Amino acid sequence: MRALRVADGTTSLVDVAEPRPQGEALVRVLLSGICSTDLEIARGYAGFRGTIGHEFVGTVEDPGGGPLARGQRVVGEINAGCGSCALCAAGDPRHCPERTVLGIVGRDGAHADLLRLPARNLLPVPPTVPDEHAVFVEPLAAACGILERCPIEPGARIAILGDGKLGLLCAMALADLRPLLVGKHAEKRKLAGDIETSSIEDARRRGRSFDVAIDATGDPSGFTLALDLLRPQGALILKSTFHGGMPIDAARIVVDEIRVIGSRCGRFAPALDLLARDAVDVGSLIDQVVSLDHAEDAMRRAASPGVLKVLLAR
Amino acid sequence: MRALRVADGTTSLVDVAEPRPQGEALVRVLLSGICSTDLEIARGYAGFRGTIGHEFVGTVEDPGGGPLARGQRVVGEINAGCGSCALCAAGDPRHCPERTVLGIVGRDGAHADLLRLPARNLLPVPPTVPDEHAVFVEPLAAACGILERCPIEPGARIAILGDGKLGLLCAMALADLRPLLVGKHAEKRKLAGDIETSSIEDARRRGRSFDVAIDATGDPSGFTLALDLLRPQGALILKSTFHGGMPIDAARIVVDEIRVIGSRCGRFAPALDLLARDAVDVGSLIDQVVSLDHAEDAMRRAASPGVLKVLLAR
Repeated sequence: MRALRVADGTTSLVDVAEPRPQGEALVRVLLSGICSTDLEIARGYAGFRGTIGHEFVGTVEDPGGGPLARGQRVVGEINAGCGSCALCAAGDPRHCPERTVLGIVGRDGAHADLLRLPARNLLPVPPTVPDEHAVFVEPLAAACGILERCPIEPGARIAILGDGKLGLLCAMALADLRPLLVGKHAEKRKLAGDIETSSIEDARRRGRSFDVAIDATGDPSGFTLALDLLRPQGALILKSTFHGGMPIDAARIVVDEIRVIGSRCGRFAPALDLLARDAVDVGSLIDQVVSLDHAEDAMRRAASPGVLKVLLAR
Repeated sequence: MRALRVADGTTSLVDVAEPRPQGEALVRVLLSGICSTDLEIARGYAGFRGTIGHEFVGTVEDPGGGPLARGQRVVGEINAGCGSCALCAAGDPRHCPERTVLGIVGRDGAHADLLRLPARNLLPVPPTVPDEHAVFVEPLAAACGILERCPIEPGARIAILGDGKLGLLCAMALADLRPLLVGKHAEKRKLAGDIETSSIEDARRRGRSFDVAIDATGDPSGFTLALDLLRPQGALILKSTFHGGMPIDAARIVVDEIRVIGSRCGRFAPALDLLARDAVDVGSLIDQVVSLDHAEDAMRRAASPGVLKVLLAR
């Protein structure tokens, strides 16, 4: 089968043996999405070797002992826990110390014809949700996951920093809370639909007035901007996983008693619910749908400034 | 009167005019404590010019319209708010945007014979608390303030990093929660009394097992150590206000979903209560009591490695 693999600093589409279930489920991938994390991994982040990709929709090829029928359309939670530690026993393997993560840590990923995941990780996709929307469930769940880490009261003033894929998804996920989306690109901010948007300069003019700032810029400058916008004792939610050190003025965090809250993966169910209700316009985030055969070109395209979501079709 | 003043990069004891009340209370200082923040300010932190010092015990010289009698022994909250904004109206001027801060922001401080504060900032000292303990109320309140910012459940595993003045005070303030005090200096850790202590190396051997890590090291290395000790989704409480940038691996905060919580000033009442109950051995933290006449020497002494609290007597 085809697989887009990272090894020794190169990323290439190669022919590999099909995975064997080994007690897990097999999924035939229909569509997979290129995430900024894929680009980071291709640059050497986390030292991963193997097939990349963790955003997908597919069909069950082998249920792996799970309840889903062969042919069922599914998405899959990307963290695969040990199944026996306290965290896994509580039903949340996202921080299991022994976990593997699809296409990120110790487990081949989704930019391939087939992938393997524990059967318990798979969720059926409601029939009304098209593949091109279902493939967004993982990053949308990560956006929804903000509320797992930091419950936000209605009426709170929320700034979402960054008008790339992640920022737009955060804005869509939190639309009911009426956030302000702040970014550099007027044409991208238009994709936010009814959500209020602002340039960085205009946001700064509002002064230190926000209760919550969500950094989805993917750039260290987002952290400083967030501190400039937050009121004292405000919450800075950090979504970006860019690689490398970020110089932080710790005294500002202490003097203004800011809370900096890291947020990574979210549960899929709330995101699937948003998609099923057609409450989020994820389709507007698609830049191109490209055949997996052209995955290497697609990765270059996805790395170009200003490009939103590039999807790989089978 | 005498005053230890910072101006143009030099710190010197000078003779200045006595402050006029101008509607506030006047306090005759009995004893003041040299804080690491004083040393930072003397090095240029925050661009402060004026009399430094914010830890004191004194007697009321002029009640300034407040309820306390002349001669009453008092301590004083260091943040003086505008009195009319929403924060001040709610009784908490600590983040009033117009605030001055005793000896730190726009207000002459406590290393002098007299100081001025709003009458509402003053609290009477219980008669059983000696001056040498009462002078610790401000830093002890800052330690107690951790629980205002981050309620900690009994049974939580807490590591306090740094066995200097601040770390020891945090350990004393949180003693009921049975923290582990982690530091470089075995002889200082002995001052923690019944509190469990550990070297940095031994703490690292416990792995990523702590629910809460409190960085009171005053050094960027404390942040990294805290991340090494915290479990996923743990809380890193930042107490240190050292000057300058700190390189942070933001990806670790995101991937492990750490909460970084800045904590500055605390309310005085819980700290006064600890002192009144003689529940904390702050006296063990005194290095020297020196006459204000020798304040310049005392600042040099306080800046020497390993020196704990230097107090200035009148």
